[in-house]
Order: sequence, then C-alpha cells, then structure tokens
Amino acid sequence: MTRRPMEILDQVLNRQPVIVSLKGNREIRGILQGYDVHMNLVLDRAEEMVEGAMQKRGTLIVRGDNVIYISPLVG
Amino acid sequence: MTRRPMEILDQVLNRQPVIVSLKGNREIRGILQGYDVHMNLVLDRAEEMVEGAMQKRGTLIVRGDNVIYISPLVG
Amino acid sequence: MTRRPMEILDQVLNRQPVIVSLKGNREIRGILQGYDVHMNLVLDRAEEMVEGAMQKRGTLIVRGDNVIYISPLVG
Amino acid sequence: MTRRPMEILDQVLNRQPVIVSLKGNREIRGILQGYDVHMNLVLDRAEEMVEGAMQKRGTLIVRGDNVIYISPLVG
Amino acid sequence: MTRRPMEILDQVLNRQPVIVSLKGNREIRGILQGYDVHMNLVLDRAEEMVEGAMQKRGTLIVRGDNVIYISPLVG
Amino acid sequence: MTRRPMEILDQVLNRQPVIVSLKGNREIRGILQGYDVHMNLVLDRAEEMVEGAMQKRGTLIVRGDNVIYISPLVG
Amino acid sequence: MTRRPMEILDQVLNRQPVIVSLKGNREIRGILQGYDVHMNLVLDRAEEMVEGAMQKRGTLIVRGDNVIYISPLVG
Repeated sequence: MTRRPMEILDQVLNRQPVIVSLKGNREIRGILQGYDVHMNLVLDRAEEMVEGAMQKRGTLIVRGDNVIYISPLVG
Repeated sequence: MTRRPMEILDQVLNRQPVIVSLKGNREIRGILQGYDVHMNLVLDRAEEMVEGAMQKRGTLIVRGDNVIYISPLVG
Repeated sequence: MTRRPMEILDQVLNRQPVIVSLKGNREIRGILQGYDVHMNLVLDRAEEMVEGAMQKRGTLIVRGDNVIYISPLVG
Repeated sequence: MTRRPMEILDQVLNRQPVIVSLKGNREIRGILQGYDVHMNLVLDRAEEMVEGAMQKRGTLIVRGDNVIYISPLVG
Repeated sequence: MTRRPMEILDQVLNRQPVIVSLKGNREIRGILQGYDVHMNLVLDRAEEMVEGAMQKRGTLIVRGDNVIYISPLVG
Repeated sequence: MTRRPMEILDQVLNRQPVIVSLKGNREIRGILQGYDVHMNLVLDRAEEMVEGAMQKRGTLIVRGDNVIYISPLVG
Repeated sequence: MTRRPMEILDQVLNRQPVIVSLKGNREIRGILQGYDVHMNLVLDRAEEMVEGAMQKRGTLIVRGDNVIYISPLVG
C-alpha cells in the first residue's frame, strides 16, 4: 500500500492530534482541521512547546513553508 | 467539519484581533482587514511586540512570506 | 470593509510617507511612487535608518522579497 | 542504465528503510510509503536521530523542501 | 505621477551611476546597461565597496535575487 | 563549442565519478545515474566527505536545490 | 546601447575567463562554455579561490541560484 502525503493529512482531519515540527526549532500540536496544496494548515486547540512547556494557542493557521514534518499522534 | 486556511481568515476579517507570528522572532497584533493568495495581510490598529512591550504601528501591509502562523484571539 | 493589500498601496501612492521594514533589520521611509505585483516598490525622497540616524537615499527601487511590512505614516 | 530520481523512490516504496538527511543537521529513517512531485515524503515507522540516539516518530509527512538527500539502506 | 519599478530602471539606463545594495552587506556602483524581469542587472564600469574602499569590477551581471535596492545617484 | 549545463550531465552519466558540492559545506562523490530538470541527482556508489574522511553512502537521491556545483572527475 | 544580462553571457562564451562570485563567500574563475535561463553555468578550466589560493576544478556545472554576480575579465 502506497500513500501520498496529502492522503495522510485527510486521514487525520478532525481526529487525533498531530505534532508539527517547524523551522527554527519550533513545535506545535493540535487537531488538524484543514490544509491546502501549499501545506498551509489549520490547527485547532493548538499548543506550542516553549522552553519545555506547552502553551495554549487556540486556532492557528500555519504557513506551509515553515513545516519540516507533520506526525499524527498514535491514538 | 473541515476548514481550509483561507476560510479562517475570512471568518476573522474585521472582527477580533489576530496574533501574527513572523520569522525572526517578531510578533504583531491587529485587526485583519484583508489578505490575498500569498497570505499578504492588511492589519489595522496593529501593534508590534518589541522587547516585551507593544508599540503601535497603525495600518500594516505584511508580506506573506514572513508569516509563521496567524492566531485569532478568542473573543 | 475589507481591503486587499494592494488597495492600501494604491491609497498611499504619492501621499504620506510609508515606513518599509526590511529583512536584516533595515528600515526605510519614503513616498511610495509605484509598485508591482511582486511588491517591488519605488520610494521617492527615501531615507534609511542607519545606527539610529536617518540617511538620505533619494529614489529607491526596493526588491519586494526583502519587505517584511509597509506602514503608512498617519498624516 | 540511467535512473531518474523519482524511479529510485518508486523502487524502495514499502521496502527497505531509507535515510533522509534534512537541512539543519537532522536525520530521519523510515519506510517510504509515498511521495509527490515536490519530494514531500510519507515515512512509516520513522525514527529521528536526536543527540546520537534514535527516537520513534511513527508516521511522518516530511515537506520536500527540507530534504538534502534520500538514501535507501542496503537490504 | 506614479512610476513602476521597471520604469525607473529604464530612465537611468546608460545615464548616471546607480548604487546597488545587495544581501550580505555588499554594495556595488555602476552604470546600468540593461536588466530583465528577474531584476538581473548589467552594470558597466562597476565598483564594489570592500572594507570601505571602492574596487573596480569592470562589467558585472548581477543576479536579481541578491538585490535589496537600487538607487540612482543624483546627477 | 558551447555546452548547456544539462549536456555535461548527459556526458558523465554512468561514467567517471562526479564531485557534488552542497550548501552547508557538504561534499559528495559518486557515479551520476540520472537527474531531472530541478537538478535532482541520482548518485551511485556515493561517498560523503565527513571531517576529512570519505564515508560510503550507497545510492543517493540528492535534492537539486542543495547543489552549488557538480564537477566531473577527470578520468 | 543597452544590453540584457544574457547578451553579456553570449559575448563571453568560450572567450576570456569570467569571475563568478557565489553566495557564502566563494569565488570561481573559468571559461564560460554555456548557460541556461536559470543562470546555471558551465565553466571550463575552472579554479576556485580557497583561502587565498586558486585550486583547479576542471569543468564545473554551477547551479544558478548560488550566483551573486558574473564578471568577464578584461582581456
């Protein structure tokens, strides 16, 4: 079974949280509510790791060109 | 319910302030008045966080390629 | 009222000065005389902030990909 | 025999692990489950090298513009 | 009067020298002999500022993506 | 005789090794097995220079945007 | 007389050496044998300046996005 990158994003929409690793050593977690072809993301109930602690961010629109990888948390 | 990135921007137009996190550790707040497909933004009554204090910036046109994420403040 | 980024630029053409914040901590002020779709700018009577002092630069063509934001000065 | 880059990716789909070297001195290993024209990758059973030790990451969608090279492990 | 960026370049072709500010704190002066849509430039009788002194460079083809701004010297 | 960049790559396919200089001070050698329009490369029997010593890498798919230059070794 | 960037490259093909200034403070000299629309270059009998000394590099294919400027040596 092969799976294209965008299929994985479809499978986790509104499901388990994803970890988004961003350039500049930033890491965000949240529920993926949407995305587009540029890998721009909508994350709901987002939290950002800041100096080892999670800070709540609410809803985030992340610009895709900052993304290193997206990892669905195992449920 | 899935929501595309640009839909979120539509929902907050001329409503509650948004926080815009920019590359280079810059952060701006303001009322979103408009945007385009490049995620270029118009922010009204904008303020920029400079060394821990908010400085007024009036109206700003932010070039989209600087954006890391946009976060609507919860009303 | 929503306003697209390029509309704001139209409104300030040949009017009050704009502040242009550039990547690499550079800041330029001047009268916007023109622009194009890449956000390349023509600034007249431009000045650049260098070590806290404004230096005159005359007319400048600024390449758009250096721009962080553009802010019209309140008249 | 000449082989185009995307052919190599086809040959290792769901087979032996690949090492993915990323910008910023990051290295990830996993089973390649899919990719697209931007070299966005789906890696299954992924692990990331962090300070000399491998950490499990589950499934990863890696954005292609971070990739330096991809190397199939010899089986 | 509004003036598009490329019009300014047309006006200074083969006339007064221009200062070209480049990324990485480099500065070049010369007579603009030509340009294209990428803002690639041909500079004749070019000089580069190196540690405070101007060094002659002859003819230069500058790749546009290095340009921060171009400033015609007032004649 | 003029030779376009891609012609040189054609001439060395499956022949003498090439040196590939990458951004970030990395250097790889190998037999070029293929390439595409983005200068993505397939290198066979690749080796990477790490702290002055060559380490074997097997087959590599190098993403073109990391390449500074490619140099065929003189046979 | 105005001259487009690519015309200058045509004029020096297989003639006098050119100096190619690259991002990251690298400098290469060689005979220009070809180029394409991305400013990818073929340099023959190339030499690279390394710590003040010229090292022979043979034929090089330089990826255009590394180029700052190209300067034909005066014959």
